[in-house]
Amino acid sequence: MKMISEFTDHDRIEGQFLLGSVSKGVNANGGSYFSVELRDASGQITAKKWDATLQDEEIFVTGNVISLIGETNKYKDQLQLKILNAEVVPLEQIDVDRFVKAPPISKEELIKKFNSYVNSVKNVDCQKLLNYMINKFKDKLYSYPAAVSIHHEYSSGLLVHSLTMADIAAMLCPIYNADYDLVITGCLLHDMGKIIELEGPIVYKYSLEGKLLGHISIMCAEIRKAAEELKITSEIPLLLEHMILSHHGQPEFGSPVMPLTKEALLLSLIDNLDSKMVVVNKATEDLEPGSFSTKVFPLDNRSFYKPKK
Amino acid sequence: MKMISEFTDHDRIEGQFLLGSVSKGVNANGGSYFSVELRDASGQITAKKWDATLQDEEIFVTGNVISLIGETNKYKDQLQLKILNAEVVPLEQIDVDRFVKAPPISKEELIKKFNSYVNSVKNVDCQKLLNYMINKFKDKLYSYPAAVSIHHEYSSGLLVHSLTMADIAAMLCPIYNADYDLVITGCLLHDMGKIIELEGPIVYKYSLEGKLLGHISIMCAEIRKAAEELKITSEIPLLLEHMILSHHGQPEFGSPVMPLTKEALLLSLIDNLDSKMVVVNKATEDLEPGSFSTKVFPLDNRSFYKPKK
Amino acid sequence: MKMISEFTDHDRIEGQFLLGSVSKGVNANGGSYFSVELRDASGQITAKKWDATLQDEEIFVTGNVISLIGETNKYKDQLQLKILNAEVVPLEQIDVDRFVKAPPISKEELIKKFNSYVNSVKNVDCQKLLNYMINKFKDKLYSYPAAVSIHHEYSSGLLVHSLTMADIAAMLCPIYNADYDLVITGCLLHDMGKIIELEGPIVYKYSLEGKLLGHISIMCAEIRKAAEELKITSEIPLLLEHMILSHHGQPEFGSPVMPLTKEALLLSLIDNLDSKMVVVNKATEDLEPGSFSTKVFPLDNRSFYKPKK
Amino acid sequence: MKMISEFTDHDRIEGQFLLGSVSKGVNANGGSYFSVELRDASGQITAKKWDATLQDEEIFVTGNVISLIGETNKYKDQLQLKILNAEVVPLEQIDVDRFVKAPPISKEELIKKFNSYVNSVKNVDCQKLLNYMINKFKDKLYSYPAAVSIHHEYSSGLLVHSLTMADIAAMLCPIYNADYDLVITGCLLHDMGKIIELEGPIVYKYSLEGKLLGHISIMCAEIRKAAEELKITSEIPLLLEHMILSHHGQPEFGSPVMPLTKEALLLSLIDNLDSKMVVVNKATEDLEPGSFSTKVFPLDNRSFYKPKK
Amino acid sequence: MKMISEFTDHDRIEGQFLLGSVSKGVNANGGSYFSVELRDASGQITAKKWDATLQDEEIFVTGNVISLIGETNKYKDQLQLKILNAEVVPLEQIDVDRFVKAPPISKEELIKKFNSYVNSVKNVDCQKLLNYMINKFKDKLYSYPAAVSIHHEYSSGLLVHSLTMADIAAMLCPIYNADYDLVITGCLLHDMGKIIELEGPIVYKYSLEGKLLGHISIMCAEIRKAAEELKITSEIPLLLEHMILSHHGQPEFGSPVMPLTKEALLLSLIDNLDSKMVVVNKATEDLEPGSFSTKVFPLDNRSFYKPKK
Amino acid sequence: MKMISEFTDHDRIEGQFLLGSVSKGVNANGGSYFSVELRDASGQITAKKWDATLQDEEIFVTGNVISLIGETNKYKDQLQLKILNAEVVPLEQIDVDRFVKAPPISKEELIKKFNSYVNSVKNVDCQKLLNYMINKFKDKLYSYPAAVSIHHEYSSGLLVHSLTMADIAAMLCPIYNADYDLVITGCLLHDMGKIIELEGPIVYKYSLEGKLLGHISIMCAEIRKAAEELKITSEIPLLLEHMILSHHGQPEFGSPVMPLTKEALLLSLIDNLDSKMVVVNKATEDLEPGSFSTKVFPLDNRSFYKPKK
Repeated sequence: MKMISEFTDHDRIEGQFLLGSVSKGVNANGGSYFSVELRDASGQITAKKWDATLQDEEIFVTGNVISLIGETNKYKDQLQLKILNAEVVPLEQIDVDRFVKAPPISKEELIKKFNSYVNSVKNVDCQKLLNYMINKFKDKLYSYPAAVSIHHEYSSGLLVHSLTMADIAAMLCPIYNADYDLVITGCLLHDMGKIIELEGPIVYKYSLEGKLLGHISIMCAEIRKAAEELKITSEIPLLLEHMILSHHGQPEFGSPVMPLTKEALLLSLIDNLDSKMVVVNKATEDLEPGSFSTKVFPLDNRSFYKPKK
Repeated sequence: MKMISEFTDHDRIEGQFLLGSVSKGVNANGGSYFSVELRDASGQITAKKWDATLQDEEIFVTGNVISLIGETNKYKDQLQLKILNAEVVPLEQIDVDRFVKAPPISKEELIKKFNSYVNSVKNVDCQKLLNYMINKFKDKLYSYPAAVSIHHEYSSGLLVHSLTMADIAAMLCPIYNADYDLVITGCLLHDMGKIIELEGPIVYKYSLEGKLLGHISIMCAEIRKAAEELKITSEIPLLLEHMILSHHGQPEFGSPVMPLTKEALLLSLIDNLDSKMVVVNKATEDLEPGSFSTKVFPLDNRSFYKPKK
Repeated sequence: MKMISEFTDHDRIEGQFLLGSVSKGVNANGGSYFSVELRDASGQITAKKWDATLQDEEIFVTGNVISLIGETNKYKDQLQLKILNAEVVPLEQIDVDRFVKAPPISKEELIKKFNSYVNSVKNVDCQKLLNYMINKFKDKLYSYPAAVSIHHEYSSGLLVHSLTMADIAAMLCPIYNADYDLVITGCLLHDMGKIIELEGPIVYKYSLEGKLLGHISIMCAEIRKAAEELKITSEIPLLLEHMILSHHGQPEFGSPVMPLTKEALLLSLIDNLDSKMVVVNKATEDLEPGSFSTKVFPLDNRSFYKPKK
Repeated sequence: MKMISEFTDHDRIEGQFLLGSVSKGVNANGGSYFSVELRDASGQITAKKWDATLQDEEIFVTGNVISLIGETNKYKDQLQLKILNAEVVPLEQIDVDRFVKAPPISKEELIKKFNSYVNSVKNVDCQKLLNYMINKFKDKLYSYPAAVSIHHEYSSGLLVHSLTMADIAAMLCPIYNADYDLVITGCLLHDMGKIIELEGPIVYKYSLEGKLLGHISIMCAEIRKAAEELKITSEIPLLLEHMILSHHGQPEFGSPVMPLTKEALLLSLIDNLDSKMVVVNKATEDLEPGSFSTKVFPLDNRSFYKPKK
Repeated sequence: MKMISEFTDHDRIEGQFLLGSVSKGVNANGGSYFSVELRDASGQITAKKWDATLQDEEIFVTGNVISLIGETNKYKDQLQLKILNAEVVPLEQIDVDRFVKAPPISKEELIKKFNSYVNSVKNVDCQKLLNYMINKFKDKLYSYPAAVSIHHEYSSGLLVHSLTMADIAAMLCPIYNADYDLVITGCLLHDMGKIIELEGPIVYKYSLEGKLLGHISIMCAEIRKAAEELKITSEIPLLLEHMILSHHGQPEFGSPVMPLTKEALLLSLIDNLDSKMVVVNKATEDLEPGSFSTKVFPLDNRSFYKPKK
Repeated sequence: MKMISEFTDHDRIEGQFLLGSVSKGVNANGGSYFSVELRDASGQITAKKWDATLQDEEIFVTGNVISLIGETNKYKDQLQLKILNAEVVPLEQIDVDRFVKAPPISKEELIKKFNSYVNSVKNVDCQKLLNYMINKFKDKLYSYPAAVSIHHEYSSGLLVHSLTMADIAAMLCPIYNADYDLVITGCLLHDMGKIIELEGPIVYKYSLEGKLLGHISIMCAEIRKAAEELKITSEIPLLLEHMILSHHGQPEFGSPVMPLTKEALLLSLIDNLDSKMVVVNKATEDLEPGSFSTKVFPLDNRSFYKPKK
């Protein structure tokens, strides 16, 4: 099955596609039609379903994966797709590999790097908690994205984010004389609650637990539970719960307590730095040098300038 | 042993007292002395320790309970106490009953009322969680204050606050068609995390866990742990965790999520109402009609006016 | 004349309807048409006026009540109405009963309950002011809504809100030892300024006075005027003016002073509680258990979750 | 009786003085003494009352006017006063002229200027309201200060402020094509509510009405009452009430509505400008060129720099 | 070439027009068309380009000046224009005089007035800096608008704003005993950085420097550079740099420092007053008395009421 | 001359000391005395000047360096100093080396490292600007502290901070694909304006320029001036001016523009991270494990917990 980036003019297309934005119009003879955005990991294309039926109302919904038959044609020099037939693909039949970008390094490399960081931690209580959580979440840990959005998100985005933070932490701990074991454990665990907060095979959405509790409170409680089960009596679980709770830095960003240990402060600063740099990179990577990006919502809606070469 | 309210002039006094504010002065011949506030459940009195020794520095510390020998005298028509000898009372020898006010109703009545609310809850999962928590916290539940402060605080303040909220909730649930079992359970459990957040035999202070996690996150995690142990599979624990997390209403007041169910909203509104009314009552109850109170810190530092009769 | 809820297919319809949202489209042959929402107290329906004329521009305006002749038909299994002829109904000819929901209890019951609260107030100055205001505003007092919006608003919404607050106040005054007469009078009078702030026979809008002064300042001045006319010399009018001015609790919510008496604080807390609970109830009452509401603007745009049964 | 600026060494002093700051100390032989600041319109001086008696506690209170007998002496090259005897002067016996600075122009000039502005207003309803208010408040209007503070405040400060605003308004109305009558009337009336908000013969304090209502709501209600009495049916009273209510510009500065007419906006901008310029002038007028003032509380606690000459 | 205000029915039109809003539609036979707003200094008119071609996509862009041939016709009693042919006018061929309103006084008068203010300044360092800047910026100084917007903006808007501020300053300096030379120089220079901040022949946009630095920092640096070049050693340049930096009054409005001299405070207050009054005047000048304006974005989105005559 | 850390009991001391906090008391016989904190680079000690004279008022002022003769003695087991004679040391005679801590690495090492970063920058315009600024500021660059405070501040604090930031930047640029030359140049230059903002030989205070302009606007203008002198025509100076202006990240922290390039964002995030980590390190480095620090003002007044070992 062809990927979107491989389409040419007058192709007959069969395959699974994710529905992005969907709009409905009225055509010249009074009937209605759908104009939709189809996506796969290789790109996106505009498609039309003319003479929409009542059933189409339930098929053409943002976030659905549909299986379709169609034909490409050119309109104003741009390829588009005329949809002849479409149906919703049940969750279990979705061919996930068609929809998510591969991460910049292979998943195997990421897992290897993750394990190597786990092994670098010497404190036995940190190790116990890391292994407990890896054991509990590992399937999803290696595939989850870093945020609710498919746009430009890798599979393994959660892993990539945690590992970049660990890279930075490993370099900063000696500069600031911070406890390596605590900070690295914090980097690896801090966002794991997102595995419960988000759900979905391709397009991730907030789960009910995610909405009512948030990944921060979920993960804090998970560590508390694990520490009790593992009968850890040191201060380590408390320090890690605090690091999880405070890693967004401010109440208005979702942290019920502010960082009160050097290690919690460092974790929150690294998280802040990496999150913002990833956003600015996404916003500017495909930009022409010497021009401004579109407005970047998570950075106060600013447009970023890419300097001339 | 006499209580402070029973002192008369030229009494010889022996007994335990709590140290309120402490200040140190220099006397006429260059030595130093302590001027301190002594408290017990019946009132407070100013006391002097003249010719302070080096050891006195460690004895006269706000929050200590001291055992002293002294004599009362009058200064400008006011009784004060001259301390002849004082030493710090070890925690386990403190006679707690001397220091805490009795609640407005007896502790037995409160416990009876509490149990009656527990029994009025029909939902089995709510019941299980209530019984689990009562079992875990009961000793302290019946004696804890409602906040870090001895001033005007009852023993059993936590219980009094929870029960007043339950009284209001019982009346409001039918008006707003809210789930009685959820709201009552929320009233009874919402502040129980304070038993871990605060510590101390008489003067309560934030514990390390209290500072690093806060009673909201602590209690949310406790419910999550209990629900897993009790193998509860309904939505109830999630709804209660959400009610606990959101009961301060706003991120800037310590709630990482805002209320997202009718019952959580109602709980947070009742908590807000009772907390503020208790504060205004304390600030005005001994006030002369037709005058203003001193500034009330938790109510934006306002002074409240007590209307003329 | 049939109400909307009674329409069936191929009915011929004549009657008065309120125009909700209005949108204009271009039809296949270049002319324009209106697609509008018609409302009465029983429900709403989509209607089309094809081949719109220039005069139609002034008829099809949100908020107008129109008298129309039309025919129902089904489109995609949903009843809609084709408008053959329409004209604007002059204010004085509007059949108000077709447009407002009956309150949950009958208006007679509400008035009886209101009077009973008035009679329960013992303080003579409170009584004088209550009677003065009832006399001045009574016609509108018994029919006004509680806010600018027809959506889900009862006729008598203002009365319902004031009485619910009185119910809660009657229960809370003894708990907090607050002055019953002041708080009940405050509940009954606090929003009466809305009778001047809002205007309109069905769809209420802010009047010029409402926009330039607001109901809070209007009512405060009305009490001041009444007290002078009634030659009241006690503190009561001042205390009530203060309660009116401060009942929104914070400057940013429109109160130029914050509550500075126990009774003013209690009034503002009850108003806050009832206003929010009414909003959450409207947002969730028709919601499927286990689902989220649409975003609720007056509650920070949150979506509320209705627990499963 | 000598004014403070006329004191020399070894004077015997008799007369009335206002008590500024008061502090109490312990002297070498264990007794207590008062160190106080005495003020009159000509300046201030430090005074001591050695061997304070119990009665002195009620005499030496900030804001009291006392009648004293004392002797001047020099301490570290500075004149100070030793108080031999002091008693509180009853309100009706205070010699007010000793305590308030004369305004920069004479009160007669100010009244003349005020009347001339009143006469310049052509609109009959504005005129009626102006005359009504002048009649009601005139005694105090000509003597009130502009704010709660005796420091650097003139008698007639309220009048001076209103007239400076009128001067500026008279110049700005033609530039911005604003209604002269409305803006001038607004300038003359906008702060008249302070006559009810503040009280006191010398040291002005907030009255009970001032605290519970504020001068803005008081004056708005006064205009409403006057308009009804005067049977004015034009829009003028509403426009003036709105100007009064909104003249602080923002809810957080005490205005329940924001300016919604050109004239209300202009009034609030002139008030803002004059208030701040008066403050900066007071803070810098006695300052050495090339130095910074002390922190200026109403201007965000900034220190202002006075440029070198 | 006719101006828009001179169009009549069935005119053949040739000439340059500025494109305001642009929208694209689909016509009955599936092709697309443009509906655009054409502007010149005399007014605006709706125009249609039917059967849009691919090239039209680049021509019909908001902000372009196009040269067109068309015909007027009436639609619903309103004149509109059918565009037969259009092309983009290169920057250097734009007939600027067709697009900008003349200021209320002639440019010659404004320049004369500006020079007269420059000559009224006695301080030699102020004079040197004024002359330096006039020399550097004069061409643009006399033609720049006061803000990014063509709507209701005069050519010379920058000059008009600076001179109105100077008029007000000249009247206020003696009232507040402020340094005339500093304040007038500040009025004349404070917004000159906009000449670098904004760019464009007709529709002004932020330049790259404008976006990355802002007119405040640009002008501050220009004065610093000029002072060094002119070898001025007095405090004057520092005081002016400070006035420029602080003239928006608050960090959130773009001033990195707040006013710390009397003259800087006065400049910022006059700027605030004039900017807001100009906005309210634009919003209400064409308004029917007795009605509300549309929402005014720079004034907190309020609608302003224009009193009845 | 002995340093404070070398004092023993009954030493006779002669030498220069910096005055920290100063308080004045009244002694038993009515005279006054000074209790002061003396500091040098090795530590601090409490000292008394009994029987204070009038001249002492000008000598014992916080921030003065005094030359004194005194004797040590023990009071409550702590060494203190009795000052026999003291006078102020003129600026030019201060022995600066007695007062500033040596940085953690030697100044020579720091300068070497700084030069090595300068040489690592390849872009010729960055190089030109770096060399220009080093040439202009070098004397002070190598000795300035990083902030207004002597407490725990190294000489060379500015250099240490800039170099730590460069270390972090050098590691992060490849991760986020940011321009090394821009970010390193930004790290080295970003705070150089503090050399003009602060002044003083030992205790640094804000200079007049520092107060009226701030180091951000000063440095931005310096780069603009340098770029013009150096006739640089590339975008580099603009990008660096923007990085300087925006490096505090938010208007409320003193940046008139927010970061709008990837490199400016990265610079501001590294500055934020290093500034906060340095503060938390100072607050906790001498703290007992298992205890809380005093409140840390620049980190929202929080107390930080140092985990147990």
